[in-house]
Amino acid sequence: MRLSRRSLLTGTAGLAGAAVVGRSAKAEGARSGAAVDAVVIGGGLSGLIAARELVKQGKTVTLLEAKSTIGGRMVNQKVAGGGVIDLGGQWGGKTHYRLEALSEELKLKRYPSYYEGKGVFIWNGKSYTTDLFNDFWRSIGFSNPDDIDLPEKEKEAALQLWNELFEISKSISVEQPWTSPNAQVLDATPVSQWLLERNAAPLAQWMFGWICRGNGAQVFEPYESSMLHLAWSMAVAPPNETAEDWLFYKGAGEVAKIIANELGSRIILNAPVFKIDQDSSGLTVIYGDCKTVRAKTAVVAIPPPLRLNIQFNPPLPPRFVQLMRRTPMPSKWKVLAVYPTAFWRDQGYCAAGSGNLDVLEQTADACPPEGNPGIIASFVSGNKIGGFSQLSHQEQRALVLKDLAAYWGPQAKEPIELVIVRWTEDAWIGGGYGVTRSTGAWTAFGSGWQDDHGKVFWAGTEQSTRWPGYFEGAIEAGLAAVKRLNAVLA
Amino acid sequence: MRLSRRSLLTGTAGLAGAAVVGRSAKAEGARSGAAVDAVVIGGGLSGLIAARELVKQGKTVTLLEAKSTIGGRMVNQKVAGGGVIDLGGQWGGKTHYRLEALSEELKLKRYPSYYEGKGVFIWNGKSYTTDLFNDFWRSIGFSNPDDIDLPEKEKEAALQLWNELFEISKSISVEQPWTSPNAQVLDATPVSQWLLERNAAPLAQWMFGWICRGNGAQVFEPYESSMLHLAWSMAVAPPNETAEDWLFYKGAGEVAKIIANELGSRIILNAPVFKIDQDSSGLTVIYGDCKTVRAKTAVVAIPPPLRLNIQFNPPLPPRFVQLMRRTPMPSKWKVLAVYPTAFWRDQGYCAAGSGNLDVLEQTADACPPEGNPGIIASFVSGNKIGGFSQLSHQEQRALVLKDLAAYWGPQAKEPIELVIVRWTEDAWIGGGYGVTRSTGAWTAFGSGWQDDHGKVFWAGTEQSTRWPGYFEGAIEAGLAAVKRLNAVLA
Repeated sequence: MRLSRRSLLTGTAGLAGAAVVGRSAKAEGARSGAAVDAVVIGGGLSGLIAARELVKQGKTVTLLEAKSTIGGRMVNQKVAGGGVIDLGGQWGGKTHYRLEALSEELKLKRYPSYYEGKGVFIWNGKSYTTDLFNDFWRSIGFSNPDDIDLPEKEKEAALQLWNELFEISKSISVEQPWTSPNAQVLDATPVSQWLLERNAAPLAQWMFGWICRGNGAQVFEPYESSMLHLAWSMAVAPPNETAEDWLFYKGAGEVAKIIANELGSRIILNAPVFKIDQDSSGLTVIYGDCKTVRAKTAVVAIPPPLRLNIQFNPPLPPRFVQLMRRTPMPSKWKVLAVYPTAFWRDQGYCAAGSGNLDVLEQTADACPPEGNPGIIASFVSGNKIGGFSQLSHQEQRALVLKDLAAYWGPQAKEPIELVIVRWTEDAWIGGGYGVTRSTGAWTAFGSGWQDDHGKVFWAGTEQSTRWPGYFEGAIEAGLAAVKRLNAVLA
Repeated sequence: MRLSRRSLLTGTAGLAGAAVVGRSAKAEGARSGAAVDAVVIGGGLSGLIAARELVKQGKTVTLLEAKSTIGGRMVNQKVAGGGVIDLGGQWGGKTHYRLEALSEELKLKRYPSYYEGKGVFIWNGKSYTTDLFNDFWRSIGFSNPDDIDLPEKEKEAALQLWNELFEISKSISVEQPWTSPNAQVLDATPVSQWLLERNAAPLAQWMFGWICRGNGAQVFEPYESSMLHLAWSMAVAPPNETAEDWLFYKGAGEVAKIIANELGSRIILNAPVFKIDQDSSGLTVIYGDCKTVRAKTAVVAIPPPLRLNIQFNPPLPPRFVQLMRRTPMPSKWKVLAVYPTAFWRDQGYCAAGSGNLDVLEQTADACPPEGNPGIIASFVSGNKIGGFSQLSHQEQRALVLKDLAAYWGPQAKEPIELVIVRWTEDAWIGGGYGVTRSTGAWTAFGSGWQDDHGKVFWAGTEQSTRWPGYFEGAIEAGLAAVKRLNAVLA
């Protein structure tokens, strides 16, 4: 096994092209001294899409990115065996129409994610080979409950609570969740408390923990957020619409690279923004080493909690700030294990694993179509990152490999490359993914969450009401911000 | 009744002296161009104390304050009838020895808070005249339970839970709460869930809500934070040590004024800090309109969530950032109602009221010793501020007066001045008071909370393990930061 020697977060090499273009030229605003039509803050997918759309419309644009690389959490990287991995998001979903259209436009080929063969469900150390679910709301983890040899009563009780969540999610207003039926009570009820009220057994408790931490538009512990927020998450990113349906041949990160190259010198890297001053004629954005860009409008496309890293003048509304302070950055790391081949496929498996393991609660097949090299994607999710991140990298790897082997056998312990992407340790990203609202935050402080701030327009996937936390939401939010911004420019 | 026409947050007038001194002169660092020994960020009590201590020790100091006034939440103001109010904190406690010593040193006279006569407890609209408690852990609100005509069983059940909290609080490590017995379980249990587990009746639920929102070193809703954090709050600020024991004749804000005048031109107002760059020889602090101060060390004495408003280079440790993002700014407004005399005293009351009212869950006598003018202090606390802040100021006043009258009769509806201090609407303060940690944050991300960041030393009352959220904690934390800093300067 070759341990990757890459430190922390990599992927810079593959993006050198875009980076050099960005660095070597002054951006339009800086060059001319005149105000650009829009400054875009944040070079993740949402900011890139907003900038690209503005350029298409003939607007002058400067994009400021705090990091030395573009793409945010949309970053691909070559790995051993001739493969490509995505360090952040990678899948397209069945109903991710905007992402699909974008891939067509950029001429990036896609292929269906591999779901042939059996999955595995692990409960208290015992492994069950199972069919995959075909209805998410009748599944346990990724598995068909009929194939899991646990007491029928416990499974049925868990699925009943599952169904209750599904029913609540149907009643949620995605734009104004605080107006949903019973919103006050649901938002004052932590998920863990809701489960206690219903005498949930350990299986149901784990299933809810698993979905809170892992699946959908959110990452939180069941005690950290409310039933209203969980139901909202299910409403904005319906898990039965197969969010992990297809993949990019070259990795999703290719999308960011292509758009960054299109934008070229409009991008300024290493440009963290400190301050946005608004006046009657526009904005002055102060960044980096006290440089300024003058702009008529701004699109802010960074994760919501990071907005508090910018000093706004006039200041953001107090309730909006209170909401942001109750929108903690979710904790998620990605694991990518690369093998010579997708050995599990030969054994009739598709690498869709789930279960109550110590570190990895789910795995998925993330190979190229032919399974060569074999790649398994997994996650370390939620508050366990607090303790896990204090272990040495070697200890982390050992625990990850132990769980991979529990799912897929001893061969899984011998990857040719193992990449752990520690997103919470990237200062300009801070974690992932999606939106977590603290219990009660939606109903107390939520009502201004979609309000732009003068000529500052919010983008970023978390701003979407359709697949926030996903690429699809990033595109939607970027385009929507441009649409609102145009009303000011017009 | 004369409605005060002061907008939002006032108190600037009374501080004009200090402000002018600060504005009119360049600070030492700026003047000489050489590095000061320490830059202090934040001009609340903790920062003022740190700066004062450094000056006493012969160090060169620059204090940067984001606002145009000094004192943070330690601000006094003249009101109708010749009285003085404090817009933020005002009381000293029985065991607030540092604050007591400071008042002696500054020659500021104190007097005992007025607790003669009866209190009032209101439950579901019914008012009970009661003796005050003499043991907090045998009290309901501020009242002796024997005087409250509710079923003995319900009162006893509530007091049993009260006692259970008290017992847990004794087992908490104030420095390292995550190492306390049963810490993992306690921290994964929202207070509201803990109450549900014990079938708490409405009275007990309210009592816990009341203490979470109001009394001690924290302000949060029972569903927002954990039993571990509540018990920690009780351990660091024991409510049976009478935290509201005495008052300053001239108002507590006088302390800040005197120290600010001592510091004189070392203070720079209107100087929000954007960035702190550290290198081997010291720090460069960038503030205001991209001005810089060079310093050997820094004391950061601002509320913890506001630290995220500063860009640190090197960045703050990821777990520390995760913790700060799970330390939302508490929501509390202060209400001060001024009357010609303390009419309640003539009726045998001491204005200590508590109860499950819509807006004001507690009131206290805040008069000068002779009760002339009469002043009642109260609070709007917790998430109700979310909705309350959306009402017009006139509507807010009407609701406040309604509750004041419920406690103290129709005369309470006729103040000669009514001041509502909307702390959450002050962009450079953001709320108050004390420390709220989201459920689970202590155990997942807490362990570095006291670690300084290179040559940046944390102060601010919230950093203390003895009376955080109080003046006492502010002094302790300011002095402790200087002590640690001296190890670097030496």
